[in-house]
Amino acid sequence: MKKKNINASIIIIGNEILSGRTQDTNTNSLAIWLNSVGVKVLEVRVIPDVEKTIVETINTLRKKYNYVFTTGGIGPTHDDITAQSVAKAFGKKYEIHKEAFKILEAYYKPGEFNEGRQKMVWMPKDSSLILNPTSGAPGFFIENVFCLPGVPSILKSMLGGLKDKIIGGEPVISQTISLRTVESEIAKSLTKVQNNNKDVEIGSYPFFQAGKLGVSIVLRSENQSRIDSCNNEILEFIQEKKIEIVDR
Amino acid sequence: MKKKNINASIIIIGNEILSGRTQDTNTNSLAIWLNSVGVKVLEVRVIPDVEKTIVETINTLRKKYNYVFTTGGIGPTHDDITAQSVAKAFGKKYEIHKEAFKILEAYYKPGEFNEGRQKMVWMPKDSSLILNPTSGAPGFFIENVFCLPGVPSILKSMLGGLKDKIIGGEPVISQTISLRTVESEIAKSLTKVQNNNKDVEIGSYPFFQAGKLGVSIVLRSENQSRIDSCNNEILEFIQEKKIEIVDR
Repeated sequence: MKKKNINASIIIIGNEILSGRTQDTNTNSLAIWLNSVGVKVLEVRVIPDVEKTIVETINTLRKKYNYVFTTGGIGPTHDDITAQSVAKAFGKKYEIHKEAFKILEAYYKPGEFNEGRQKMVWMPKDSSLILNPTSGAPGFFIENVFCLPGVPSILKSMLGGLKDKIIGGEPVISQTISLRTVESEIAKSLTKVQNNNKDVEIGSYPFFQAGKLGVSIVLRSENQSRIDSCNNEILEFIQEKKIEIVDR
Repeated sequence: MKKKNINASIIIIGNEILSGRTQDTNTNSLAIWLNSVGVKVLEVRVIPDVEKTIVETINTLRKKYNYVFTTGGIGPTHDDITAQSVAKAFGKKYEIHKEAFKILEAYYKPGEFNEGRQKMVWMPKDSSLILNPTSGAPGFFIENVFCLPGVPSILKSMLGGLKDKIIGGEPVISQTISLRTVESEIAKSLTKVQNNNKDVEIGSYPFFQAGKLGVSIVLRSENQSRIDSCNNEILEFIQEKKIEIVDR
């Protein structure tokens, strides 16, 4: 039996995102994947490589949400302090994970498993591994906190191996109708539809495509029949207002 | 006289980011711009279109940081609830801003300034406007909280008009050296450099370009001479290890 509402938060750890040097894409990859397995992302925080901040953020969010996902800070350099910070947050020892050690020992050529690389097998005691099919060094999870790397392509390659470690809820169904109109033309009617259907999340997003303005209305719910009934109400006012449907 | 350390947080408001429907780019635009005017971004939060969450997040962050920037939720539709939430956060009336009303009344053709559009001139009492050269509807600020729209191109066009409303600190200087190496090869040496120069932020970022691996080392400080001295220590170990410099 699936639980109904399962939620998560994401912590993006890295000065490079806060300075604007790097455009974060991990939030988007994780959000799409989590939604696909029935986990709703309710909050994202981007924080610097500062131990105290990481510890406090993890301890706040792991109590508030079913799952917490961190990205970044699990590499071999001095600014990679996620694993030791998670250990502190849980009051666990920070130690060599034997299985991770074996994986990396086998991964690298003899003599190449140097001190820098060995740092990547230090994890909080009682962590379980998240395998890394791209570059060897595993992520880890402890209780409801899952720690993934910051490099987007590596993170993406590790999501498949996470699926059996997460218990999702009812997947959220999303349906989009795109209209040739502007938001202000439909705002009043859309408010009525939202008030009639408080359990459906209705979003309105202007777009500009091929030189033309439009609005996408996004309906989200666990229940297809609730989406259908919203959709009918929207089609009704669209017809009345003679608004062209661009895409649905 | 400029103050030395001025910081900010960014609040991205919008279900569409949390669901993965939309890739946020406003964090990056704001972070780059804020850095350029001497404001360091210390935290970003992405939160849903939920009034209670918006109010709580604003009230937490406006006490913690010199500036708070919000993006999203100031359009004409029912899911645009940022302005009313900011009013609640400050315990201010939510009312028609007369100057904003005049701007939009003049912006639209007669008869086109309809109810939906009029919603966009409702703001917290005592707000000041942030002009919008792209699409008319202004953003606003009250005390240290600045509210900007979610559409990336519009947000970007409004940053220029913000410059005289923000008092920045010493701008952070950033210098990058890119090396043909892997992180584990330089991790130990780089840790030493960081320990010798605790006041310089040293980041290490692997990259993969034109089929080749490399590492960018990023040095950040308000003080050029501190960066130079770090840089010299790094050049020293690079030379010793015979590592090729790709770019600096």
